[in-house]
Parts: sequence; structure tokens; C-alpha cells
Amino acid sequence: MIIVMQRGASEDHIARIIQFLTSLGINVERMSGQQQTIIGIVGSSNGLDIQSMSTMDGVQDVVRVSSPYKLTSRTTHPADTIVTFADGTRIGGNAPSIVIAGPCSVESEDQLRRTAECVRKAGGRFLRGGAFKPRTSPYAFQGLGFDGLEMLRKVSQEFGLFIVSEVMEPAHVPSIAEFTDIVQVGARNMQNFPLLRQLGNITRPVLLKRGPAATIEEWLMAAEYIMAGGNQNVILCERGIRTFETAVRHTTDISAVPIVKKLSHLPVIVDPSHGTGKREYVNAMSRAAIAAGADGVMVEVHPDPDRALSDGGQSLTFELFEEMVCDLVRIGDALDRPLLIEPFTGSTTLKPRPKVSAH
Amino acid sequence: MIIVMQRGASEDHIARIIQFLTSLGINVERMSGQQQTIIGIVGSSNGLDIQSMSTMDGVQDVVRVSSPYKLTSRTTHPADTIVTFADGTRIGGNAPSIVIAGPCSVESEDQLRRTAECVRKAGGRFLRGGAFKPRTSPYAFQGLGFDGLEMLRKVSQEFGLFIVSEVMEPAHVPSIAEFTDIVQVGARNMQNFPLLRQLGNITRPVLLKRGPAATIEEWLMAAEYIMAGGNQNVILCERGIRTFETAVRHTTDISAVPIVKKLSHLPVIVDPSHGTGKREYVNAMSRAAIAAGADGVMVEVHPDPDRALSDGGQSLTFELFEEMVCDLVRIGDALDRPLLIEPFTGSTTLKPRPKVSAH
Amino acid sequence: MIIVMQRGASEDHIARIIQFLTSLGINVERMSGQQQTIIGIVGSSNGLDIQSMSTMDGVQDVVRVSSPYKLTSRTTHPADTIVTFADGTRIGGNAPSIVIAGPCSVESEDQLRRTAECVRKAGGRFLRGGAFKPRTSPYAFQGLGFDGLEMLRKVSQEFGLFIVSEVMEPAHVPSIAEFTDIVQVGARNMQNFPLLRQLGNITRPVLLKRGPAATIEEWLMAAEYIMAGGNQNVILCERGIRTFETAVRHTTDISAVPIVKKLSHLPVIVDPSHGTGKREYVNAMSRAAIAAGADGVMVEVHPDPDRALSDGGQSLTFELFEEMVCDLVRIGDALDRPLLIEPFTGSTTLKPRPKVSAH
Amino acid sequence: MIIVMQRGASEDHIARIIQFLTSLGINVERMSGQQQTIIGIVGSSNGLDIQSMSTMDGVQDVVRVSSPYKLTSRTTHPADTIVTFADGTRIGGNAPSIVIAGPCSVESEDQLRRTAECVRKAGGRFLRGGAFKPRTSPYAFQGLGFDGLEMLRKVSQEFGLFIVSEVMEPAHVPSIAEFTDIVQVGARNMQNFPLLRQLGNITRPVLLKRGPAATIEEWLMAAEYIMAGGNQNVILCERGIRTFETAVRHTTDISAVPIVKKLSHLPVIVDPSHGTGKREYVNAMSRAAIAAGADGVMVEVHPDPDRALSDGGQSLTFELFEEMVCDLVRIGDALDRPLLIEPFTGSTTLKPRPKVSAH
Repeated sequence: MIIVMQRGASEDHIARIIQFLTSLGINVERMSGQQQTIIGIVGSSNGLDIQSMSTMDGVQDVVRVSSPYKLTSRTTHPADTIVTFADGTRIGGNAPSIVIAGPCSVESEDQLRRTAECVRKAGGRFLRGGAFKPRTSPYAFQGLGFDGLEMLRKVSQEFGLFIVSEVMEPAHVPSIAEFTDIVQVGARNMQNFPLLRQLGNITRPVLLKRGPAATIEEWLMAAEYIMAGGNQNVILCERGIRTFETAVRHTTDISAVPIVKKLSHLPVIVDPSHGTGKREYVNAMSRAAIAAGADGVMVEVHPDPDRALSDGGQSLTFELFEEMVCDLVRIGDALDRPLLIEPFTGSTTLKPRPKVSAH
Repeated sequence: MIIVMQRGASEDHIARIIQFLTSLGINVERMSGQQQTIIGIVGSSNGLDIQSMSTMDGVQDVVRVSSPYKLTSRTTHPADTIVTFADGTRIGGNAPSIVIAGPCSVESEDQLRRTAECVRKAGGRFLRGGAFKPRTSPYAFQGLGFDGLEMLRKVSQEFGLFIVSEVMEPAHVPSIAEFTDIVQVGARNMQNFPLLRQLGNITRPVLLKRGPAATIEEWLMAAEYIMAGGNQNVILCERGIRTFETAVRHTTDISAVPIVKKLSHLPVIVDPSHGTGKREYVNAMSRAAIAAGADGVMVEVHPDPDRALSDGGQSLTFELFEEMVCDLVRIGDALDRPLLIEPFTGSTTLKPRPKVSAH
Repeated sequence: MIIVMQRGASEDHIARIIQFLTSLGINVERMSGQQQTIIGIVGSSNGLDIQSMSTMDGVQDVVRVSSPYKLTSRTTHPADTIVTFADGTRIGGNAPSIVIAGPCSVESEDQLRRTAECVRKAGGRFLRGGAFKPRTSPYAFQGLGFDGLEMLRKVSQEFGLFIVSEVMEPAHVPSIAEFTDIVQVGARNMQNFPLLRQLGNITRPVLLKRGPAATIEEWLMAAEYIMAGGNQNVILCERGIRTFETAVRHTTDISAVPIVKKLSHLPVIVDPSHGTGKREYVNAMSRAAIAAGADGVMVEVHPDPDRALSDGGQSLTFELFEEMVCDLVRIGDALDRPLLIEPFTGSTTLKPRPKVSAH
Repeated sequence: MIIVMQRGASEDHIARIIQFLTSLGINVERMSGQQQTIIGIVGSSNGLDIQSMSTMDGVQDVVRVSSPYKLTSRTTHPADTIVTFADGTRIGGNAPSIVIAGPCSVESEDQLRRTAECVRKAGGRFLRGGAFKPRTSPYAFQGLGFDGLEMLRKVSQEFGLFIVSEVMEPAHVPSIAEFTDIVQVGARNMQNFPLLRQLGNITRPVLLKRGPAATIEEWLMAAEYIMAGGNQNVILCERGIRTFETAVRHTTDISAVPIVKKLSHLPVIVDPSHGTGKREYVNAMSRAAIAAGADGVMVEVHPDPDRALSDGGQSLTFELFEEMVCDLVRIGDALDRPLLIEPFTGSTTLKPRPKVSAH
């Protein structure tokens, strides 16, 4: 933060500001020219809300000139974070970009198995599926809960898939981390700080969705909560922001990909299913995400989208999913960053839920 | 919901839609003209995502024509909900409009007592103060926790004030309900569904802030979660929405007041401190809120805003607070809905935290 | 603008920045501390886009610390601008607040006369009516053009009303200024710079609506175009901004009133008809505007809103209009700033379209 | 439009609605079920604002079920519009995707020539350059006007490039159409209806930028104005919308590409220079645009961006431009829709500004 004094502010006013800050143990640096003085805050502001000082006498403006996040910043950690699973599968950096796919909600073992098979046959390694569902309406299907997680465990082992599923409350963190390979934080919980703090206590990778009204800075600050707690395995996921446009459910902010890549070292993926809310646009937006440099995409796939219990309109059919994977492979190859596609041999030699390390 | 079939859709397509819905136990009504047919859903959609059907053959559009909320709707509950405290103090309906005031965060007993005295002398009955604070940065002051609640209890009893304080996680609901007269849900938790469900299990009134990116419909749906759980004492609080404007922190949506009044029977108040983020605009926006028909306002007051540990820039000084109350009294009188102002006699005959009833 | 150099930027980098700026004739002031240097721009930047320098070596950030508008700024012109008409009627400052009312579009002389009579009987002095209409669809009613202006002239003279009507293109400015007392610039033309420049060449007051996606700063910059051309008679009009909320057409930004009052000396009024798009919310938002300190409101009134050729849903009936005026009178009196209400005697002694002066 | 009557609305109410509409010459279709009736509007609404009827007795809701644009709609014109120049160069449909590049403003002949050479050597065929500049500030560089257009003509002929330049007011349309191959309408003029009408009278292709707060529907309605006037050569250009995100100037809405492709037959390109406002993100967003199916991109290139008179921060250097073109060629090839790249032979056999046809 810097405090820009008014041109011609009195020495008295300047001295009072400096004294106020130093009395609170805050280090300052005075930069003076012939007509104007600027006071810079060096290091921590000790919890003081510097912005509040903008109404003090002699102050013209209080301006932030450094980012408020530290652990998530590329300045303090120039190398890309790569989330690595026990079998060597990696997300981020120059690792192949990934596809996470599956139904919005786990509805039944049969629905899940058919979808998992489709994902695996297309070469995918990550199965998503909601067991605890945040729904706008209390009357909508709320998910199968731990029964759904059991189905995810069973089916993912059959096909050698990693599990991605959402946690909604702090008390569930340990058990959901046990069931999954990546714990997802939904967009509406991006600033659920007690939840984020709990996630800082585990080592399981966290997929942190951007809130629909969150700036990129706030999103990185939310990741900072998790990292400050000790968990370095954070994967960011853009899933559409709220704008005035009504042709789609949200506006997928593809520019978030290069912006995050510049500001942070964390992996970033895109979810065009929630980002658009309409299956007909998912492939185009997945292509855009990969072309823009995303570390992967997450999409919804359902054996019979018209009959889905949630978000059917945005779920891909199996055919559309395969088509999308083909397109992404082409773009990945063209830009020298291939898509992670592992041929399915029919047996599941891969161990699911392996240990994870970050560097 | 209604399903608008394409002009000239075949009988076959129409029959298939109807059969699909009835096979799921959904009641439909067919409305046919000479060229076009519309299929209406009667009653519950049994959890089916009707919108997903918009891609089925013969369908032109799927349109919602009734609101998704029931308990919060004025249609189903035409009379205003009035939240009533044991001493007869009421919020909502034609009751006097109220002022809730206090510091953003409880910082010390002295800070709280001085503020409480100011609020009480101005005639206020409701003391706000954050003990658990949702902060964007993990490095910012996070509140005094239960120590802060103890201070609130002590000081509120001295001055006969009702306590309003925030709850951030489901596990804290019972204890915070014990300490407070109104449990506040912060804007970022408006769609924290496990928290809302817990709040449905208590009878203590809930002040539900609107999320900065929440539509009014989503806000009413969040209230629906609480009411569906059994707690009818919900007070809505507009506190600014996120827009492109950067001159203030948020855009206070004053129109939310008459809109909520039309759509719902619940009381609605406005928080112009968070709504603008700048103390210099708080009085004008409080006046606007009361003039527009709000059931009250909630503002931040601090004995020394420049040194506040949080949100100092938006906190009123004692002088500005008194000035605001005077203005609100004038407007209330002019519009025949007075402000609740109770003279302070210096003794606290009022029992804090009385039982609450709603009707 | 200030250019914040990186902590520890080399003397060489600092020198290169200063040299670059001075070579373009830009005055700079160097403010140096022990570790950091900041370079301030003094006076004009001679058309250089200083922000572009943020990518130059050694630069950490380029920050604006002064507002880009000058003539519209309260800093350079502390006293309120009051637009004054020949008969002494005034808008702005501590003058009584005003009501501008009339149909969205002039549809017929009869429609206009009946509306004008209603406005005048309620004590109003300003008649609005669109003759050239900006319509989203090329197939919608586009206004009666100069025929409509003739009707406005005739009817306004009968009732002693000032005329407010919209201009849409630069070539029409002189003739529309001839027909009207206040020339309106619609929201979609707020940044139609050739139009603004033409309006700088006349003396007729200009009512400048805020664009639905314009920041307050951009709005003041648009006013700056008119004032820089020589016309000081600018009245600002908030009419709702575009947000994600869909319950109303726009979100009326009531906070724009106190913000404009702080930043600028220009009068500011509010148009809640366009601001909400629904007549049922117009009264509440007019009350809010006046309570927040607006210099007036502008509303749509129509003898038969259901049959209006444009914007019927947001037009007040005569009854609702009278009710609104009564409410505004009460609030104005309560806040010691009365509403301008002139009793109608049945004869039109007032001269319409008088000369205008600003100070 | 359909008018949904309340469940149980009386026959009298239904009859009154139908009578009201037919009395205005509007054709209706009555669709009745056992409990509910819906009235559909068949064909034109004769300028009546049907939405206004939502407050009439017995009406539950008025809902639009068909799009308001006709000529721009893919429903009425299923085949892609391909804008074709005299030498056979095409934009749209399955034609190679194009790159339009050049400086934000024409500043000097030297600046323009160096940029044109860079564009041409990279294989580009379209040179952009602003001569009339819409600037937020009246004190910023406003462009060289017709001198700038003369420079564009001269330089484009040297290198065989098509010219794209902006028109700002109706009176300039004929002369600017004379100087250019594609007439650009800037974002802030998207709803400048007199300008759009003038552009309907020419045959020169029009590049219609999306307004920063315009929905896709409003954008197509603006194109409808041009097409309704007789000019079928409209190219849409997404250039970023206004959102709450402040990390970039605008949010480039990549999803607009597949949405426009679905709703309309018109070509659509993307301008990531204005879309992001920062050169470091331009390449990533151009790649995203082409991957999503855009018919081309438009970017700003400048020989010395730090010294640009406008928008320097978003202009690519020559090196970055060449790098971007290489990336786009790769993606185009991967997706079987190559980029239009024409080797530069050093002589200008190509005739600029040829006749144009659309189909």
C-alpha cells in the first residue's frame, strides 16, 4: 500500500500519518519530491485496514501496489506447481493437459458405471460425480451422500479412474478426502472460510472453483487460505462468472487462464459445462480453454442427459464427449502440449487414490 | 414450467413429451390451439430438471412461469411476517422501522461499550458486532470468536440491546443462537446450504444477507431453505451487489426493497455500510432505504474508525450516526411509518434475548 | 498518474523513464525513499497513454491518483451549478427539487394534452416526451419525429410547461434545441462523442443520461465533452445500470446521487421509470432518489399505459403519478428541501422556453 | 410472445385480452387446457408493447418464445453468410479464418507503413487503423481524421491490403465507405441507430462491434438495423464485455462465438486487444477465439507500443504478432479450417477496395 499525500500537504499532516503507522509497529518509507510526498508501507500492515486512512487529513488517496496474496503468487514461487499422483500422473506445468468427466450427480451405480466406461474408453483418467450437491432449491435432488461416494469408489476402482467429488461443509472434509483423489470446492463455497481452513489441514489435492462473482484476486486469496494452512495441492477451476448476458447460464471467462498463469504458479482448468449451462457450447469452449493454455477441462457426461436429475441440459452425451476429446487431442498436439490420453486395456492395473506430492 | 412445442410439432412429438413426463409421475396439462400446443407442468416436477427437455424433438422452448419459492412467497402467505421479540419489539409489516448499529468487529470491551452507549442514547435497540469474521485474506483480523460473543452479551445487557452477530459454520449454530437475538448469515454464506439447513432447526430469528452476486430469486430460495426447515423468523438484508462500478465497493440495490415487498412477506432491511463501503454515503443510502419502504437499516459505527481493525472506512463516527438517526426519524414521520426510537433512561429494564414468535 | 518503480529498481531504469517523459514535454516529480522511487506526472500528459508504460523495465505499477475530469469536478468548481430558466425556475444546488413527467413517446396530440394536464395539475413544470426514439428493434415504433416536437411545443404552451425531449444525432442538435427547453441525451448515446461535441456548441441545458454500462467517471467524462465545448448547463440523469439481476430491467443506482454530489457540482436527477422498467416500483424509487438528495426525478406517465406504443409497463397512470408527487412533497418537506410544486391556475402566464443561464 | 393466463382466469378476462389484441389487428391463437389458457401472438404485434399487458387482469405472465430478430437469424437464413471481396477473398462460412491487424490509431505515414509491412509479411490481408477515434476523454488524441484515411489508402495500396476503419457519425458514412473496404462500427456506437440506418444504405461490409454492455440478442438486433436497410454484409466482432473483473479492461466473451454461430448466419470475429486491454493476453485469447470457431481475429500492432498515442498497452510488438500468427496457423490446421495466409511477394498485384457481394 502507498499513501499518496495531497500536493502541498503540510509537514504536520505527513508527520501525523507516519507517527500513527509507526505507533502500530508498521514500517514506512517516506518518498518526497518537491511538491508531493508519498508514504509506502514496508512489510506487514499488522492487520490495520490501511484503506480506512483515506479520509485522514492531508491524504489524497490510498493505493494498493502489491498483490495481497503471497503463497499463490508467481512472484514468490516462480516455478509452476505440479500436482503429482502416486502413479506419476501430473496436473500443471508442462504436464499433459487432462480431462475430468462424469455426471453432475451420482444417481445410481448403473448410471455411474456406464459413464465411467465411456470416460475411460476415451482415454480419460479422472471421474467426477457429485454426492453432496449444492442446489439453489431445497426441493431439488440433493445428492446420494455417502452412498454416492461408495458408488464412486467402487466404479472408479473397476476402471482405474481418479475420483473428483465435492465437499460442502467443514465437518465432512476428512471423510470425503478419504473417498476421493481430488476434493472439489464448489463455486458457491469459494469463500466458505471455515471450509477452506479445514482443507488446509489435509494433503489431498483441492479443486477450487471460482465463485461466480469472484475476481481473480479473490479467487487467489481463497487458494491462499488453503495453502496458508499447509496444503500446497490446489488446482484452480474457472467455471463461468455472472454477467448481464442471459443467452447462457454464466460467461466462461477464458481470459482467466492466461491471467492466472501470469499471476500464479497454480494449475488452472476450465469447466465449460457449468460455464455455459448448455451442452451445445461445451466442445467449443473446451477447445478454447485448451488453446488458451489451460491445464485441463472438466465436463459433465451423462448416459441420458434428458432424464438427468440435475443439470441435464449441460451434460454431454457419450458421442459428444468422444468428439470433444478428439478435438482437444488435435489442439494439444498442434500447440505441443498433448492431452493426457491413456488407452483402456480393459483391466484396471492402475491404483486409485494414490499418495500425492506437490513441488 | 411450460413446454412450448414448435408451431406444427407432430402429434408424435407431443405424445412423447407427455408420456415421458407422466411416466415420471408428473402431472401435465395440454393446451392446444390450431397450430401450436403448450404443455404445462401441474404441481411438482418430482426433481426432474424440466429445462433439460428444451433439446428434445419438437420443443421450441421451456419457460418458467411460476416462482420456485413457496414458503417465502407472498402468493402463499399474503400477510406480512412480523418477527416479534418477548418485550413486544417487532420487525416487519407496519411495525416501526428499526436501526441495527455497532462495530464491524468486536475489538475490545471498551470499544463495544462506548459504541453500545452511543447506539442506545440515539434510541437504538439492536447492537451488531462481529465475533467470527469472514475475511477475504487469511492474514487479516479474523475476530475474537467466543470471547467477542461474551463481550456482546455483557455489554448488551448493560444497555438493554438486542444482539445481532454472524455465524459462519453449521457446527456453531446452536451456540451462536444462544448468545444472540438475531443470528446473521453473511453475504458470502447466502448459499451455504448446510448452514441454512442448521438455521432451519432453530427458532432464533435469522438475518439473511443477500449474496453480492445473488438474484433476488436466489435470495428468496436461500430463505426458503431456512423456512422449509421450520424457522419462519427470517429477515432479509440487502447489502450491495457486485457490478462494474468501482466508485464504491458494491452497488446498493435499493430497488430490492420494493421488489422483495412485492414478491415476499418477509421483512427486508438494508445495510448501506457494506453496500457502499464508504461512510460518506451511508446516511444518504439509509435515507433512501427507509424512503423506499425498508423495515430498517443496519450500519457500522465505531468510536475511532481510522483505527478500526476492519472496515473502518465504512464505519460512521458517533456524530454521523446521530445525524443519520435524526434524518431517518424525519423521513419515517413524513411517510407515516415512524422509526423505532426508545429513549434511554440509563437503566436496563429490558430483558435481552427474549423468546421470539413469528406469524 | 504516478509511476511506482519496483523496490530496488536501478537508477538506470528510473533515469530512462524520466527521460522518456521529459522528452515528450511532460513534467515529472521524482519522489525517492531509501528503497523505492515513485515518479509523479505533474500537469498534462500531452496525450500520452501513461498506462502503457506499465510494461517498461523497472516499473511495478502505474496508478491514477487524480480524476481525469476537470470542468465537471467539484475540486475545480466547488459551488453547485444551478441551471436557471428565464422565469427563475432553477435546477440544482439548494433549489427545490423538480419532477419531469410525460409519456415515453409522443403518440398523438390528445395523448400529450391529457398527460400535460395531469402533470400540470399535480404542480409539475417539466413535460417530457420522445419524438425521436432509440429502439432496440428496427421494427418497433420509432417516434413521430418533428411532428411530435410540434405537438410538444403546442401543448407545453397551453400549460406553461418546459419541454424535455431527446436528440439522437449531431445534425439534429440545432433544431431540437430550438423546440425544447432541455435537450436530452439518451443512455445509449452517452458516449456518442460527435453528438456531445455538438451539444457543447449550444447553450440550451442538456440532460445527460448515464449509459447502462457507464461508470460514474465515464459519465462525468461525457459531461466534460459538453462543458469543454462551452455549454455549462449539464444536468446528469441516473436511469439504471446493467447488472445480473433480472427481476427488473435495470438496477437503479441510487448511490450515484451522493457520489455525483461529492465528485461534481452538476445537478443530478433520477429516472426510476427506465431504472426499473415496472410502474409498481417507480414511486418507491422516486422517494429513494429524493431522500438520497437528488435534484429531481423524471418519470413516465401515460393516460392508458396498457395501450402505450412504447414502455407502457413502466408508465404511471395519472392516479399513481399524483400519489407519487404527494409522497415526494412529504419527503422534501421532512428534509428541508421542498419539491417544486406550482399550483395550476388554469391560465398559462408562464413563458415557455426562456433563455437559460448557468453559474 | 405468449400470454399465460392465471390458472382459473375467468372467461371474461380471457375474452377481454383476445378482444383487445384483435381490435389492434393482431392475430392470436388460443390454447386452452382444463385449468389454464395461453394466448399466443401469431405474426406481428403491430408495434404494441405486449410486455405491457402483464399487468392486465387475469394475466400471470407474458413470455417471449421467439427471437425478435429475423434477417440475422439462422432460422430464416440457414446458410452461412460469406462476405466476398472482388479478388475472391472471403470471410465467414467455411472460408479460411482471417487476421485483421494494425495500429489503434493512425499516427503517421511512417508508423502505418512499418506496421502494414509487418502485417503483410506475416501473410495478413486486412489492415486496421483508426482515423476517427472515440475517446473517453475530450483531452485525449482524437485521431487524424481524413488525413489518416488518406494515409491508410496510400499504404494499403503499396502492400495490397484491405482497409478496416471506423465511422463515428451518420454524415461520414459515404466518405468513409469510399476510403475503406470494411467500415467499422465501434462498441460504443453499437446502438447508434441513425448511424446503423445510414450503414444499411451502402453495400460496403460493416464490422459491427458488440457493445460492452450489450446482450448477444441486442447485438443481433443492431445488425438487423443494417440488414433491414438493405446491406447484408455484416461481420460481427466480439470485443469484450463489461463485468466486475478488474484484472483486465473487459472480459472477452469467447462463448459469443458458438452462440452467434448457432443463432445467426453472420460471420463473427474476436478482438482480444480491446477484449483484454493487455498485450500479454492477446495471443492466448486469439488462440481461444480461433479454436472456438471464430471466422477471424482483429488485433492491434504497433512498431513501438510504449510510445503509442492510444492503447499502447494492448498493442502487440511485431515479434509478438508474428508469434501469434504462427500459433493460429497451427490451430487452424489442426481443426481443418486454415488461417488465410497469403505469402508476400513484394509487389502489389491485388486491387484494394474491390466490389463486394454477399450471399
